[in-house]
Parts: sequence; structure tokens; C-alpha cells
Amino acid sequence: MIGKSYIGNLLSAKGKKTYRTFNPLLNIENPTIFTEATSEEIEEAVSLASKAFKEYSKISGAKKATFLNAIADEILALDTELLKMYCLETGLPEARAIGERIRTIGQLRSFANLVLEGSWVEATIDLAKPKREPLPKSDIRKMLIPIGPVVVFGASNFPLAYSTAGGDTAASLAAGCPVIVKSHPMHAGTGALVASAVIKAAEKTGMPNGVFSNLLSSGIEVGQQLVTHPKVKAVGFTGSIKGGRALYDLAAKRDEPIPVFAEMGSINPVVILPKALKNRHQEIAKTYASSITLGTGQFCTNPGLLLGIKSDSLSSFITHLSEEILKIDPSCMLHPNIKKSYKINKETVISQNNVSVVANFSSDVQNNFAQQAIVTVDGKSFLENPTLHLEVFGPFSMVVECVNDVELEMIITKLEGQLTGTVISDENEISNFSSVISALQNRVGRIIFNGVPTGVEVCESMVHGGPYPASTDSRFTAVGVSSIKRWVRPFSYQDWPNQYLPKELQNQNPLKIFRFIDGERTNEKIV
Amino acid sequence: MIGKSYIGNLLSAKGKKTYRTFNPLLNIENPTIFTEATSEEIEEAVSLASKAFKEYSKISGAKKATFLNAIADEILALDTELLKMYCLETGLPEARAIGERIRTIGQLRSFANLVLEGSWVEATIDLAKPKREPLPKSDIRKMLIPIGPVVVFGASNFPLAYSTAGGDTAASLAAGCPVIVKSHPMHAGTGALVASAVIKAAEKTGMPNGVFSNLLSSGIEVGQQLVTHPKVKAVGFTGSIKGGRALYDLAAKRDEPIPVFAEMGSINPVVILPKALKNRHQEIAKTYASSITLGTGQFCTNPGLLLGIKSDSLSSFITHLSEEILKIDPSCMLHPNIKKSYKINKETVISQNNVSVVANFSSDVQNNFAQQAIVTVDGKSFLENPTLHLEVFGPFSMVVECVNDVELEMIITKLEGQLTGTVISDENEISNFSSVISALQNRVGRIIFNGVPTGVEVCESMVHGGPYPASTDSRFTAVGVSSIKRWVRPFSYQDWPNQYLPKELQNQNPLKIFRFIDGERTNEKIV
Repeated sequence: MIGKSYIGNLLSAKGKKTYRTFNPLLNIENPTIFTEATSEEIEEAVSLASKAFKEYSKISGAKKATFLNAIADEILALDTELLKMYCLETGLPEARAIGERIRTIGQLRSFANLVLEGSWVEATIDLAKPKREPLPKSDIRKMLIPIGPVVVFGASNFPLAYSTAGGDTAASLAAGCPVIVKSHPMHAGTGALVASAVIKAAEKTGMPNGVFSNLLSSGIEVGQQLVTHPKVKAVGFTGSIKGGRALYDLAAKRDEPIPVFAEMGSINPVVILPKALKNRHQEIAKTYASSITLGTGQFCTNPGLLLGIKSDSLSSFITHLSEEILKIDPSCMLHPNIKKSYKINKETVISQNNVSVVANFSSDVQNNFAQQAIVTVDGKSFLENPTLHLEVFGPFSMVVECVNDVELEMIITKLEGQLTGTVISDENEISNFSSVISALQNRVGRIIFNGVPTGVEVCESMVHGGPYPASTDSRFTAVGVSSIKRWVRPFSYQDWPNQYLPKELQNQNPLKIFRFIDGERTNEKIV
Repeated sequence: MIGKSYIGNLLSAKGKKTYRTFNPLLNIENPTIFTEATSEEIEEAVSLASKAFKEYSKISGAKKATFLNAIADEILALDTELLKMYCLETGLPEARAIGERIRTIGQLRSFANLVLEGSWVEATIDLAKPKREPLPKSDIRKMLIPIGPVVVFGASNFPLAYSTAGGDTAASLAAGCPVIVKSHPMHAGTGALVASAVIKAAEKTGMPNGVFSNLLSSGIEVGQQLVTHPKVKAVGFTGSIKGGRALYDLAAKRDEPIPVFAEMGSINPVVILPKALKNRHQEIAKTYASSITLGTGQFCTNPGLLLGIKSDSLSSFITHLSEEILKIDPSCMLHPNIKKSYKINKETVISQNNVSVVANFSSDVQNNFAQQAIVTVDGKSFLENPTLHLEVFGPFSMVVECVNDVELEMIITKLEGQLTGTVISDENEISNFSSVISALQNRVGRIIFNGVPTGVEVCESMVHGGPYPASTDSRFTAVGVSSIKRWVRPFSYQDWPNQYLPKELQNQNPLKIFRFIDGERTNEKIV
């Protein structure tokens, strides 16, 4: 079996460099041989995308919706073949594959609904005032238009929902931007299957060739060539800080810099307030043992940092958390390299001054399974040692024992940007910690009350993003339909003849969308 | 007279480096001696801004509106002192000073109205569904929150409307971000007066010290220190490509990269279609002679590139344009350095192969007055010579004679990003040039039908921005109330107790703003 790239609608494997994916559960390589895309194939994919943009940027929302729904249908049609491949390449259980497929399908359909309804373009019309003094006012009409071909780098930890036809791709296609996926090497087979579904959907719904390509790649060269290509206009990335920052730097150095929307690492601080600790430490410990180990700790919102004020209750919490987490059966990580990094990062943290290990699963485990751990450290040591702020990707968390609320606030203030912050509180005590909570809000994109950060709801009000390095641009979310705004720009027509305006801006409002006309929101026509 | 910086509410002049502004009409230095801000003063201003952010980011829209309106009032109260200083430092006539003051006041008041009304925060609420299967749904509420202290670099060509208390400052203060202005050295006196008005307004309306600072600077060091300061979270800039790109590069290299919104150069292409040329070349020539020389050609939307297809009508147009532009009296440029650059850039273009000078005002003019010029070149030479694409800031335009519409389209496709594109057309002929117009749309932020690009209306539907290098981020406009979006980020609250939510997101909707609740837009409360 030979894995090939899709260069537009055509399968292609012109290169000589090959690689295989890995089954972490069986600890063996999978059989398919994937062929890395060549420089020539990359050039062809970008050129097709750029040509496709001319047509695809102008097709109707209804047609884009048909395309997006067809992608969802074709992914479902892959059925057990897809689920099986997913499990072979990730070590994750089938239930997770099914859950992630539901999320992927849901995202595609929610973007389809968004562009079918059409009001998302934020049509804004200021009518002419030809008699205004001292100067007449022109007719000006604004809407959002697509930015150009987008390159998507999928996530290792979400082979479906944040990869080939995941959130970034769905949002870009919905916006009217062709997509070139730089396939993730750890799930190249899953990616190739999903890519085949996208291409089938594109062909069935009559989309221009080049609206989608999937480029196989095991190293960094394919990505580098894509991000520096003059015809590429934006980049979506989900992964490590190192990887995301490298792409951001490349894009910023271009003659024409382009936006890189990278959703990167996060340790997702959790602040446990004193009364909650006193009244509920046992229950909180159980909830968090489960959240820390969920999906072998491989979620971007995994709670890696638990902050509390020194007390007997905090000590009891630590004891319970340690006990609870050791009751959980270790599970498989996505890839031997990820397991290796987990081990190294965990050991690095453990070796730091004043770090105590309070739980570290010590029995033998299968190859590529992660041994969960909890460590503790005092607030001062945490403040002084940046190594302790780094993400340990996996089932690991650090409890920081602060001397008081002043130290707690200082620790939060000095934290790097985070996707989420959580406050565990008995309802009335939150008011005593308003400056702690303000400080937390300033470092995160989403704040949670008495819950866990894992489990990111896909909805309009969700923010998945945050101050750097949680993401490269905190002004946008990577989850939910608002994420479409990353791939569009506002555009104004001044005194443009009605019949040549896009339908969204025409007087008669043929799409019946909501528009702002002279400041009022209405779905009426202009008479 | 000693010009001082405002470090928060206090005047300060600790430095030793001094400079003076210049009266280009009289060709002499103005009397006031300005003292460049020191490294220590910069540190103090940023530190105050960062502290002020804690309070200012949370004050109500009503209070921010009072502050913004008070700034407008205090600017008006400066009365003729401000107008006189403006004219002394720019060589521009008093009528222009009055016009720009109207624009500045209008902007401040429109942002005041925006934040007073309050719906701009895009409050979005998805209510909890505790009984949802398989998992309950949390209550999630999102709104826009300010990003942090903003540094504003004013424009040389708009000492009021895009400088000290101009669009960037008004938008940042409206968003809830403290502002540190890096004062423009060419109009340091005008800037100091406006800064005094802002500080008076801040004191009268009880704003926290540090919400605004004005740092005097004649070189690049102050700006560099500001942009690389860890507590600065965003930058606004209006000026040259060289200056804007340098700041962008500095910001991108930071440990924590920050957004730089730079509105830079543009040659604002104008496409004159054949029938319009045939029927109206005389009238169009007259209109454009006036647009090219408006404000001595010192507007960012000045039409520097006129594109047409070779014909007798185009030749007649060129003849008329040359005649008309030579009838116009030369006027003063903003500064001897700007005049010098104009002369050098004009001569550079004139010296290129196949460039013909068809008009070049040759009589003697006063010091610092610009001699307007029109040149022509064939399409092939323009395509092959990037030097011809550069902006000549001043009363200058180049007519490109294309062999046919294919060459016209290719020229547009290869243009750098632009603020505006204009199409001069007899109404029915636009349909024969749809791919030319698509290509133009792809290179600009605003497209104009049968008008001139100069004269940027301040309204909600205006886009002032465009693909690089017109601006560093085409996803935002620099003019109009939407420009507030540059300085905010979305933020989610999950399951947050109602009484601790910001008013904008509370069930009872005390501010009576429009919100999206489960997808429906309403200003009702949640019951």
C-alpha cells in the first residue's frame, strides 16, 4: 500500500522520501508507505489553490454549505475503515474515535449552516446623503471577504476534529478560502482517508480543482515551503509552542507577512480557594484525578497547574489527589516520541529544586503507556524557576502551595498566557479574591467556575485561544463558528452600481440576511 | 518655552536631547524647545499604563464615554491656540486645521456613543442545558475585553485626526486600553497641546493616572523601547512602509509577539475604462488634477497610479490632465524633509527607462512648496520595473498605458496591496471588465466607482486598510468605529455566577444592550 498526496483532485507520489505511521498499542509500524510531497508537488498544489480562489471566493453560501455537508457525509461513509485507521495510528480507543468524528461532523455542519444563513459576513451599509453639507456623502457598503489560500497544520492529539477536515479547514472552506493541508505524519493514513472524503465531496458538488490539497510530510520542509510561498495568505496550526513559533517567525519574515493562527501549549491553571478546599477537597481531588488523566492527559486544556494556599485542607487535597490518580489505569500515548517527551519533561520537573513527587505510577506498564504523576512545589520556588512553568504534555499536574493570596496573585500575574483558567470556589468566597480573579482573567482566554477545563464545547460563545503563547493572536478563537473570522477581511464598496454588488450588499437583499443599514440591524430590503 | 512629555498626568523633561519643530511656510524653526523622553521616563509611562489598565479595563462604557467627550471638549477649548500651532508646524492652511479638528472631535464622540450604547462588546450567551445527553452543556458567555496598554505612533500628515488624540487613540481608550503616544517630531507642539487636553479630561472625569501619556521623541529610540517593552500589548502606527515594517519586525521578534496595526503607503490605482475615457476624458482629467494635488498630495489615499488602455482618448486624457494640473498653484509640504523626499522620489521615477514626463511644474516656487508632476509609461516597462511601483508621497501621479485588458489585468494582479482601487466607468461597460475588477478587489481594501479615492468618510462601513503593505493586517480597518476591534480580544466565562459576571453578560441585562442568546439577537433579559 502506497500513501499519496492529493494535489487538488489528483493523487500524486512523485517523491523518493517515504515514511510509515506507528501503532503505539502494538508498538509496531503500520504497513502503509507514505511518500513525502516534493517541492514540485507543493508548487502545483499552491498554484491550483490560488487559481481556485478566483472562483471559490465568489461562490454562494448555499453552494459552500452543500460542499461542507458533503464532506461530512463522505467522512461518515468511510465508516469503520476510518475508525480502524484512527485507532491503529493513535492508540486511542474506538469510543474516542467515534466521539471525535461526531465533533468533526458537527463542526462541518455548523459552518454549513452559518454560510447558508449568510448573515455572518457582517454586511454594513451606509446610504448616500447627496444633499449633506458641506460635502455630499457617498454610498458605502462593507462585508467580509475571504483572504486567500490557507495552509492548515493539523494537531497530533485530534486526528479528526483539529486536523485534515477539522476546525481550521472547515472554517477556511466556509470563509471561501481554498485549503492546503500539511498532513500530520503521526496519522497520515487517517488524514489520507479524510482527504479522500473531502476530494469526493468537492467533485460531487462541483467545486474548482485546487479548493483542497493534502500534502504528505514527515519533516519540516514541506511546511516551511508552504508558509513562505507568496501565494499562501494565512496559516492555521495546532501543536507545540516550538512548532507554532517557528511558523510564526517564518511568516513574519516574509516580504508580505501573513497571519499565523497557532493554538499552542497551555498548562491551564486551576485556583482552588480555601473554603472550597476545606469543604470539598475529597470530591475535587477525584474530579481532577480524572480530568488530568483524560485521554492520557493529551488535551490542550489539560489542567497541569493546581494553585492553592497552604493549609491542612490543601495537604489533604494533595493526599487524596495522589491516591485517586494512582487508582486510574495508565493508558497509551499517541506515539513513542510523545511518550518519550512526556518521560523527559516529567523527569526534568521532578529534578528541580524543592519539587516533591507525591504520586508517580511505578508499576510496569505496556510500551508507550504513560505513568501518571503529581508533584508539589512551594510558591516561591515556582515563581523563581521558569522550568516549572513549562507544559508536561501527558497525565501530569503540579500543585503549587502558596503562602498567601498575595503570592497566589503574583504567581498568576507572572504566568505565561493560557487557554483556560479555572476557579474552584464556594460561591460566596469568590468575592474575597477579586484581584486574584482579575489577574487570572488577564492571562487566559476562558475562565471556568467550579468545573474542569477539559471538554471544550463547540459553540458560538466559546473562546479557545488566549494571550501568547496559548495562541499567537488572542483576538481570535480556534473553536466555534467565530473562528471563521481568522480567514476573512472587511471590504468596502463605494458608490458601486447595485447590480454589480455581491448579493449580500444589493438593495433588494435577495439572500434575506441580517444587515446593519445606517446603524440599524434589519433583514429588510432597501427601498 | 520648553516642551515636556506627559508621564501620566505629570509634565516631565528629564532628558538632555532637545529638538524644535519647523515652519515650512516661513522656512524657519519654531521657537519651542522639546526635550526627548528618557529611558527612565518611558519606563515610568509604561508602568503607569500597566497599573492603570487594572482599573481602566473595567470601568463602565458610560464613564469611558464621559472621558472621550471631555477630550473632545478640551480640544475645542484650546481654540485658536491649537489652530495656530497646527499651521505653524505643518504649513497647512487654517481651513484644513479646522476640518481636521471637526474630524477628530467627530471620531471621539462617535466612539463615546459606541461605548455608551454598549452592544459593541458582542455579548454572546449560550445557556446551560443540564439535561443534554450524553453530557450536560455548561453555561458559556463571551464578550470582547481590552487587550492591554497600546502604543500609538501618529501620522505626519494628520497632526490631529490620526495622531495624539486621533483615531487610534480614541479607539484604544474606547476599548478600555491605556494609551502611550510616541509624539510625532514634526508637530510636537500640536501634539503637546492635544495631550494637555487629554490629561485635563482624564483628571476632570476621574480616570486613573497613566491612562494616557505623551512621550516626546525626535529619533527612533523612544519608539523602539516602547514596542519592545513587555508590558505593551499592541501598537498602532500610521506612516511609511519603512517605519511601519521596522516596528512590525521588532514586535514579531519579542518573546511575546504583539499585534502591530500599521497603516502604511499606498499608490491607490485608478482604472479608467475605455468608454469613460472616450466620453469624459476632459472632465475626468480635471477631477483627477484636483485629487492628485489635494493637500499637496499628502493624503494616504492620493491617486498615484492611473491605468488605461492605449487609445486616442487616453492620449487626450493625458494631455488634459497635464494642462489641468499645471493650472494649479503649488502649495507647501509638511516639512523640508518631506519636500526633499518628494523631489528625490520624483526624480528617481523620471530617470527610469521609458518614463516620459508630460507635466512638471517648472516655475520657481517658495521653499518647501512641491512642484506637481505627471509622468507616463508603457505597461510592459511598469510590469518589469518595481521602482515604478513605489509611492511618491506628494502631488504626483503616473499614467500607465496598457496595450490591452489582459496587460491591464496582469498589472493589477502584480500590484502590491493598496488601501483603495478606483474604477472610472460608463455604467454599462463595467460588465466587460469583470476579471479586471476581481483582480483589483483582490489587491485593495476599498473599491470606488466613478469617484476619487481621497476623502475617507468616517463611518461604520468604511474600510481603511488593505493587503500588505497598505496595512500590516488586512483583517482590520483603521478608520470608523470598527477599528476598536484591533484592541480587544474575545473572552469566555463558563458557569460563572451571575452576580460576578460583568454587567454586559448578566441575566437581567442591566445595560439593555443587544446580545446573541442561543443564536438570537435580543436586548431582553434572561428569565
